Amino acid sequence: MIDKLITKMQEMNNPTVVGLDPRLNFVPDYIRTASYEKYGKTLEGVADALVNFNKEIIDNIYDLVPAVKPQIAMYEQYGVQGLSAYLETINYAREKGLIVIGDIKRSDIASTAQAYSDGHIGRVKIEDEEIEIYKEDFITLNPYLGYDSIEPYIGNCNTYDRGLFVLVKTSNPNSGEIQDLITGGDKIYERVGSLVAKWGEQSMGKLGYSRVGAVVGATYPEQSKKLRKIMPKTFFLVPGYGAQGATAEDLAGCFNSDGLGAIVNSSRGIIAAYTKEEYKIKFKPEEFGKASREAVINMRDDLNRVR
Amino acid sequence: MIDKLITKMQEMNNPTVVGLDPRLNFVPDYIRTASYEKYGKTLEGVADALVNFNKEIIDNIYDLVPAVKPQIAMYEQYGVQGLSAYLETINYAREKGLIVIGDIKRSDIASTAQAYSDGHIGRVKIEDEEIEIYKEDFITLNPYLGYDSIEPYIGNCNTYDRGLFVLVKTSNPNSGEIQDLITGGDKIYERVGSLVAKWGEQSMGKLGYSRVGAVVGATYPEQSKKLRKIMPKTFFLVPGYGAQGATAEDLAGCFNSDGLGAIVNSSRGIIAAYTKEEYKIKFKPEEFGKASREAVINMRDDLNRVR
Repeated sequence: MIDKLITKMQEMNNPTVVGLDPRLNFVPDYIRTASYEKYGKTLEGVADALVNFNKEIIDNIYDLVPAVKPQIAMYEQYGVQGLSAYLETINYAREKGLIVIGDIKRSDIASTAQAYSDGHIGRVKIEDEEIEIYKEDFITLNPYLGYDSIEPYIGNCNTYDRGLFVLVKTSNPNSGEIQDLITGGDKIYERVGSLVAKWGEQSMGKLGYSRVGAVVGATYPEQSKKLRKIMPKTFFLVPGYGAQGATAEDLAGCFNSDGLGAIVNSSRGIIAAYTKEEYKIKFKPEEFGKASREAVINMRDDLNRVR
Repeated sequence: MIDKLITKMQEMNNPTVVGLDPRLNFVPDYIRTASYEKYGKTLEGVADALVNFNKEIIDNIYDLVPAVKPQIAMYEQYGVQGLSAYLETINYAREKGLIVIGDIKRSDIASTAQAYSDGHIGRVKIEDEEIEIYKEDFITLNPYLGYDSIEPYIGNCNTYDRGLFVLVKTSNPNSGEIQDLITGGDKIYERVGSLVAKWGEQSMGKLGYSRVGAVVGATYPEQSKKLRKIMPKTFFLVPGYGAQGATAEDLAGCFNSDGLGAIVNSSRGIIAAYTKEEYKIKFKPEEFGKASREAVINMRDDLNRVR
């Protein structure tokens, strides 16, 4: 799957992933109203609105970007109906040929990690039958518990050709509180970077990168440059561009000299583009999908300047 | 809620929490068969079997233990139907007066953490209406992203009197890989312990403990003794007893001199007691609930020896 991601990135000449993190206040009035008319102001109504919103975005960007990254929290918060919207979004994205990165950031001991792994990127067993549930192509994970909490995912990655992005240096303001502590001359995130590189050694794709990738925030350019050197064969999922404040220049260091090695996420900057002044003057709320498409093109061109 | 947990612990003279982490192979044949007859060998069938299994356990232990801890992974792996079983389990446990600790170990940046927080321990908004979704009393969290990833939960804890257990030193074999690294003379888990204690200072209950607790594995007795000193007002959720190998003696250091300060989890050791030699000779599979009850009593007495 890491090979497919790289190939699609090259074919489309675009290292962008669109974060499908819809919030109700991003969803135009006309979509919400239609869903509430159908289901009432209920969880079903919210789920319907989120799915319709996502489908319109996907229709407008699937030919431009290799992947989408739904953030499960935005769905999980609405319970069963929300999770159903998450699954429907994944299915629709896959139908359109998009690679799906499930942003789940799970962390647990081995026996529990196995359950998450089987559900998200493997198969669950019902007696003698095996079923695929979530069907993400990649998922994100948190490394705090160490290797035995990651290993159950690596098994399914290798069996079913799926991939991981393990948190190394996150994009948020307080990420340094633990990640930047110094140990034996290194920062913790550097040590975690080395571990993630090691964990990925037995999961190499054919194009030079491992199925075990890393999350490296664009908001810390010096740190990402260092990590690029520590983990040359690890693909980076890079959040923080746009709404979180990072520019294309900030993330130049995330790419290798081959222009590969990183895929850059933007969520609000793309899916809520129609609410921003720049696009508002050109697109009506009904045209929010077109605004997202233009935002994707602008982001692609911006990123391609620096890699 | 931390006060309610302490009060129930004292009334029942029992620092045990029962982990509701059912796996299909723990569920006796007769329950699975009945569910499959009703729903087929489907996700609905699995969900029905898990709920019926949990209800029988709860019926047999609710008057003996203050709390249960469903592990969301065991449900989430089965998708929408699984999550529905998770919610039904929580509702049933609450009806029986049990405190519910949702073992979700989430971690994400602030805006995303807010969504998890609102869904799990707060309220989600549908336009002008507020709805409670998961209704856990406590949840577990991962600290790797730092304070701004925890803060959105603390808000809801204080508003709705809920609680947190943040991972500090986990019970699994590789937990030391990151958590035991040394920084400025301290281990990382000690530094995280200090942070968690600080994060909880503004969320004190009336009985001397904070709403912001910590997960401290029983499998590392020396480390937990140290942490008890670093964070005297922090309540510990202690996994690792029984199936993971820790004994009552190992976790003596988790308690304060008042006999409080820790609640000890056992999952398989209780819910799958009927499969163990010790109970098998006394209880038929149909009596698995009674076996769990006896296992709870034995665990209570074992723990009370050391605190």
